[in-house]
Amino acid sequence: MTFFDILDILGTIAFAISGALSAMNRKLDLFGIFIIAFVTAIGGGTVRDILIGNTPVSWMQNTLNIYLIGGATTFSIIFRNKLNYLKTSLFLFDTIGLGIFTIIGVEAGIQANLQPIVSVALGAMTGCFGGVIRDILCNEIPVIFRKEIYATASIAGGICFMIMHSLSIHQNITYIGTTLFIILIRLLVVKYQITLPMFYIKSKTSS
Amino acid sequence: MTFFDILDILGTIAFAISGALSAMNRKLDLFGIFIIAFVTAIGGGTVRDILIGNTPVSWMQNTLNIYLIGGATTFSIIFRNKLNYLKTSLFLFDTIGLGIFTIIGVEAGIQANLQPIVSVALGAMTGCFGGVIRDILCNEIPVIFRKEIYATASIAGGICFMIMHSLSIHQNITYIGTTLFIILIRLLVVKYQITLPMFYIKSKTSS
Amino acid sequence: MTFFDILDILGTIAFAISGALSAMNRKLDLFGIFIIAFVTAIGGGTVRDILIGNTPVSWMQNTLNIYLIGGATTFSIIFRNKLNYLKTSLFLFDTIGLGIFTIIGVEAGIQANLQPIVSVALGAMTGCFGGVIRDILCNEIPVIFRKEIYATASIAGGICFMIMHSLSIHQNITYIGTTLFIILIRLLVVKYQITLPMFYIKSKTSS
Repeated sequence: MTFFDILDILGTIAFAISGALSAMNRKLDLFGIFIIAFVTAIGGGTVRDILIGNTPVSWMQNTLNIYLIGGATTFSIIFRNKLNYLKTSLFLFDTIGLGIFTIIGVEAGIQANLQPIVSVALGAMTGCFGGVIRDILCNEIPVIFRKEIYATASIAGGICFMIMHSLSIHQNITYIGTTLFIILIRLLVVKYQITLPMFYIKSKTSS
Repeated sequence: MTFFDILDILGTIAFAISGALSAMNRKLDLFGIFIIAFVTAIGGGTVRDILIGNTPVSWMQNTLNIYLIGGATTFSIIFRNKLNYLKTSLFLFDTIGLGIFTIIGVEAGIQANLQPIVSVALGAMTGCFGGVIRDILCNEIPVIFRKEIYATASIAGGICFMIMHSLSIHQNITYIGTTLFIILIRLLVVKYQITLPMFYIKSKTSS
Repeated sequence: MTFFDILDILGTIAFAISGALSAMNRKLDLFGIFIIAFVTAIGGGTVRDILIGNTPVSWMQNTLNIYLIGGATTFSIIFRNKLNYLKTSLFLFDTIGLGIFTIIGVEAGIQANLQPIVSVALGAMTGCFGGVIRDILCNEIPVIFRKEIYATASIAGGICFMIMHSLSIHQNITYIGTTLFIILIRLLVVKYQITLPMFYIKSKTSS
């Protein structure tokens, strides 16, 4: 088991917990909780595998993740009140998942010999799409279009990863450095309520 | 034409009718009715084919299904008032589709040498995703998150299929037995209004 | 660079502009504008590539489109007030994209040796799915279910393409002729407010 595999496990657990808590907040039933946890944890990787043609997709070839998600969801249901009370650490779970899954996606792009800009896009999709599919299934506006600059942190991290990679820095340092970089950006963004600029179209009556 | 092919045809027709009736209830126009019928009937199989890498996906290789869906939709439009009056039999159409498509998905997983738990998941996706995509396109909360324990019946049927398969029971008996099992579960669930447990997170004011 | 490639570039730019304007109308932030422009421009082609198994999908192999979308989106942001004022030409951008992407999809189906009816369906998906995914991400009812007979124009164009193709008319003439045919249909439909018939199900109280 490589360092990469360990990161994959941590990211899967983090996203499964965030998905389960999210589903309980939406008052879904037992099945709904497991489905949302599952989708949040494997959605990004599934989209990545489909886009690059890596089929059967990863979670079908490696069933470890299915058991991890089942365990993490059960854990979330049992300790739901304790976990939610620690709202900051829940936010952290989601952010850890975003950071880890972004680098896994970028790495997959590099392995598939895709160009740097495509690898960065693949990393952002791997990091963000679990949450996007979760929100679409729940009929909400996806997380990436809400205020927190979710995907922007992921893209910035992907660019950071490509730079460190091109400088031939040791792989594990690149992994950890990029993950922490993404987590840091998201924390700063939320703490200082940084938002991206918006561009309105003037209505005709005023022009 | 094998027994398996006949089941595939029956499932496709059943889902196309349920999709068409659903679209007419939502007051979509002629094109919308055909699209929703088509998506409901082929959505699950398409997701299955994409996940296991069976491309071009089935309905592109076997155009029979396209004509079947067209015929079933036309039939539904002509007899729309009669069909809807028989609301029970409509519910039955959808349930028949669920039962048949679940076993087709599980069988596809077994053929692709996937592990039992993955095959069961694939069966549930094949059975449920047509309805999920239909609901997403119509901007509604997907059927699997509403009250009827839709997907749970599918998963229970998948497990039943795997057990019968491992006992080397004759294939056709496994197909019919599992399909009837899924239909039975769903009928019982609706008749006795069985629901899965829900887990609420205590709000902070009460803790 | 063939005539086909030029059409692909024009279609991508047209859809990116329509996506960016659409996102600004929905008051998304800078990142949201780029994402929606990107999804609108590459969504249809991505679905097409996934369905026929052409992976990694096109935009991953040819990064030119990514830069084109970036440029077109930046252009749209800078000239947003001027572009919106020309609402007719915006509608035209979207219609041009629909026309071009439809024929690209049909051509892809022919290249993959799919049957005519499947190629037409593939063309309609390539033309329409960018807009569908854009609308799903924004939590709106997809464009194809609203009034404008969007997809019907695309399907009619696909059939027109197959007829011209079977008559061995020169490729480029087929491309241009079909694209103009689709644009013409959509313009006429909007101008004369043509709608497809609807079929209501009688409510039980009245039967």
